Amino acid sequence: MSKLLTDLIEALRCLPGVGGKSAQRMAFHLLERDRERGLKLADALREAMQRIGHCARCRNFSEEPLCALCASSSRDRHLLCVVESPVDLAAIEQATGYRGHYFVLHGRLSPLDGLGPEELGLAQLAQRLGEGQVEELIIATNPTVEGEATAHYLAQLAHAGGVRPTRLAHGVPLGGELEYVDRGTLAHAFGGRQQL
Amino acid sequence: MSKLLTDLIEALRCLPGVGGKSAQRMAFHLLERDRERGLKLADALREAMQRIGHCARCRNFSEEPLCALCASSSRDRHLLCVVESPVDLAAIEQATGYRGHYFVLHGRLSPLDGLGPEELGLAQLAQRLGEGQVEELIIATNPTVEGEATAHYLAQLAHAGGVRPTRLAHGVPLGGELEYVDRGTLAHAFGGRQQL
Ligand SMILES: [Zn+2]
Ligand SMILES: [Zn+2]
Repeated sequence: MSKLLTDLIEALRCLPGVGGKSAQRMAFHLLERDRERGLKLADALREAMQRIGHCARCRNFSEEPLCALCASSSRDRHLLCVVESPVDLAAIEQATGYRGHYFVLHGRLSPLDGLGPEELGLAQLAQRLGEGQVEELIIATNPTVEGEATAHYLAQLAHAGGVRPTRLAHGVPLGGELEYVDRGTLAHAFGGRQQL
Repeated sequence: MSKLLTDLIEALRCLPGVGGKSAQRMAFHLLERDRERGLKLADALREAMQRIGHCARCRNFSEEPLCALCASSSRDRHLLCVVESPVDLAAIEQATGYRGHYFVLHGRLSPLDGLGPEELGLAQLAQRLGEGQVEELIIATNPTVEGEATAHYLAQLAHAGGVRPTRLAHGVPLGGELEYVDRGTLAHAFGGRQQL
């Protein structure tokens, strides 16, 4: 097989859920029917990988120093929702009517994986809670063992900063990932969040 | 959401089998954990889309005027196997011990889709059969209605060129696509190909 084609098939396997067989089908499909969009994908990938960084305030993905959500004047500055990942933030934005701000951990406390308070930006979060503007810290980490431990740690941070911590209501299945919860359940859990 | 991120998610949907939700997961995965490989994929895509053309002799994908298989001196020049697509060629190469040459139609006779003998390169194939080197034309089009009609047409071409046409043995499920047949079945069907 052509070297460039073999390279492409191998490279496509960096995508989650894509094995050798589907990588091959993707490569053939693009070559046979969609080279224009294949080139667009190449450009979009390069731009995204090189230019997307993290928002200085919420740590979400952003190509600007401050993301659109943090820069917006129409979001409620009294509410701050902490999530493990940008996927969870996107899920909450899409499923609920939440109009506050976010803070993205990019992980959860996991000493075995080398993820401690520093890696999750918790000093930055503590400083923000100390600014006095946030009234409620909505803790939306996943209901896994590590997610719960992280929630516990975050609740202590909130108390130390004089901020009321709340947790999403039950309804999110135990051991599950927020990302896979259907919108209705997620919206319900979000609306029924409880004080910790 | 970041514009570059939205663009990337949209662009990923050009891949077959990738919907909005999995495009989102792919984009987040690359940004969070695998930017280096994301950049490699961008390069591989650009190179492949821009530089892969078709072999002048067999019409398979190739970045050289003549593909490695056509250029090889160790393949049997008396055998020519006709397939609908490069995926089928790859499947036969991987599953069988076939050591002859190929001809890729990039489609099947389908007047409603504007695919006639010209689009499938059949004049080129007829010329090659007339050169006198090929002794057996192995017709490996899919066992669908259009694939069978194409096989019939190819068998006539072979007879006209004084070449013996054969067809893959039954074993390939009717209405199925070669690409999805397991290797064992495909190898068996290939070995037991019959004269038309
Ligand atoms: Zn931000
Ligand atoms: Zn060739």
